Amino acid sequence: MSARSDFQTWSFAIQQQMELALGAVLPPSDHLPQRLHEAMRYAVLGGGKRVRPLLVFAAGELVGAGAERLQYAACAVELIHAYSLVHDDMPCMDDDQLRRGKPTVHVQFDDATALLAGDALQTAAFEVLAGRTVCDEASDQVKMLKILATASGAAGMAGGQAIDLASVGQPLSLPELENMHILKTGALIRASVLLGSYCGEPLSSTERERLDRFAKLVGLAFQVVDDILDVEADTATLGKTAGKDAAHDKPTYVSLLGLKQAKQRAAELEAEALDCLSSFGERAQRLRELAHFIVHRAF
Amino acid sequence: MSARSDFQTWSFAIQQQMELALGAVLPPSDHLPQRLHEAMRYAVLGGGKRVRPLLVFAAGELVGAGAERLQYAACAVELIHAYSLVHDDMPCMDDDQLRRGKPTVHVQFDDATALLAGDALQTAAFEVLAGRTVCDEASDQVKMLKILATASGAAGMAGGQAIDLASVGQPLSLPELENMHILKTGALIRASVLLGSYCGEPLSSTERERLDRFAKLVGLAFQVVDDILDVEADTATLGKTAGKDAAHDKPTYVSLLGLKQAKQRAAELEAEALDCLSSFGERAQRLRELAHFIVHRAF
Repeated sequence: MSARSDFQTWSFAIQQQMELALGAVLPPSDHLPQRLHEAMRYAVLGGGKRVRPLLVFAAGELVGAGAERLQYAACAVELIHAYSLVHDDMPCMDDDQLRRGKPTVHVQFDDATALLAGDALQTAAFEVLAGRTVCDEASDQVKMLKILATASGAAGMAGGQAIDLASVGQPLSLPELENMHILKTGALIRASVLLGSYCGEPLSSTERERLDRFAKLVGLAFQVVDDILDVEADTATLGKTAGKDAAHDKPTYVSLLGLKQAKQRAAELEAEALDCLSSFGERAQRLRELAHFIVHRAF
Repeated sequence: MSARSDFQTWSFAIQQQMELALGAVLPPSDHLPQRLHEAMRYAVLGGGKRVRPLLVFAAGELVGAGAERLQYAACAVELIHAYSLVHDDMPCMDDDQLRRGKPTVHVQFDDATALLAGDALQTAAFEVLAGRTVCDEASDQVKMLKILATASGAAGMAGGQAIDLASVGQPLSLPELENMHILKTGALIRASVLLGSYCGEPLSSTERERLDRFAKLVGLAFQVVDDILDVEADTATLGKTAGKDAAHDKPTYVSLLGLKQAKQRAAELEAEALDCLSSFGERAQRLRELAHFIVHRAF
């Protein structure tokens, strides 16, 4: 089997497993309050690349972690990601109508339900990470909860979102743009890799630092490619509104660097990221493949 | 010193300690992203009865817990409470202009900032509970995180909020109303008492059940009194818009039972709650005083 099809098989299997796992940890839509539960399930299930879960599983392979643990850690990060999309799409934020090829949650339901569903999805992330067996030691589980919280809050994803909001129509320098993305998308991508690495055999602190640097670089690459795709792809391929960053006058890697330089930056980031894995050998193969996928994806 | 003034001294000291503790766990307003941090601090600091922190500390006295641990557990529940107020006040929910005698967060800042500040406050709750020493055993800390998450999410506070939202203009029966409040405000009040009880010496499962039943009854009493005050008090005393439940055509204990019966229900709930503490002796005195305060408060 070629490396490419092997990666596709692996990622498809995890996407299938995640659909089932997320469906099981979310509250059933026939239980009260039904509308809230329906909105939560609508926001999470039936699509999405599941990049963060893939990162959890790939990091888990590095440490020989079991699939069930990885699945719950991956549910936690995916629920945080899903909550952030629901709130980002709301009228007072990006006011988006389309997400993963479907009407956004506030369009399909209403603003109040979208607000509450996002809130409850965030809580569900911490509930699953605190309520399931995700590692051997309770002290590691506490660390994992701390990692997820720090990555999601004011010093992470929410903080990046706030900087993004403040930057509309403002000229940002490249370091400012990078800092925003390191928080907005990078923090949760790093958390995904770190959480996966806590599910199995312990790493040395040097190894964990290398892995964290890998995750940071991949997180940046992910965003550079996102900006490129926002310009190059059409709405049907993306499953969300294309060209919206330019329409919202948001600074992007493409607007700052130009398309050609942005592509070069993505390639550099991939190479630097792979460098961080050089000492890990074969057990880091999934992480390498995933870095490649993230940089070369078309959606 | 009379019991009453002694309770006042105790609660005032905790309110002061909590103001400092919350100020210290919240991100500083001179750090980027400043507007987000300012909104978070605005939402949390400078007021509030701090009923949930008082419950944490009172339960902590039952188990001989140290003040620093209790303070962090109390920060966690108060941050959840604060986030819920910020989001509840938003235009797509209750659309309130006034909270604790000040403009609500979305009025003082803007809707997007209120949304993000609420989101980041929820995360901050889990961050402080996972990041500080709140008990002896990491396995208890994981339990505490699970308790807080379950109380806050779709099976707790957010779920109750969703039922509340769906009930506007709908006739609710008394059991339905109670179920809504058991989730909406009761769950976090119960969590406050349980979290405090995990900060010190272990309780037997029978003791913890009694304490939990106490907390459940106090939570209900709290809401009955809230409904009474919404009718009887004026906006200046409440620090939030009075009479808004009737204005929004929301079912309340007063609209279902009448004022006199609602007051009787509050007194019954207090008596039942105190009954649950009978085996605890002197070390439950603060919990008794607090139950009395909650039922007989004027704001």
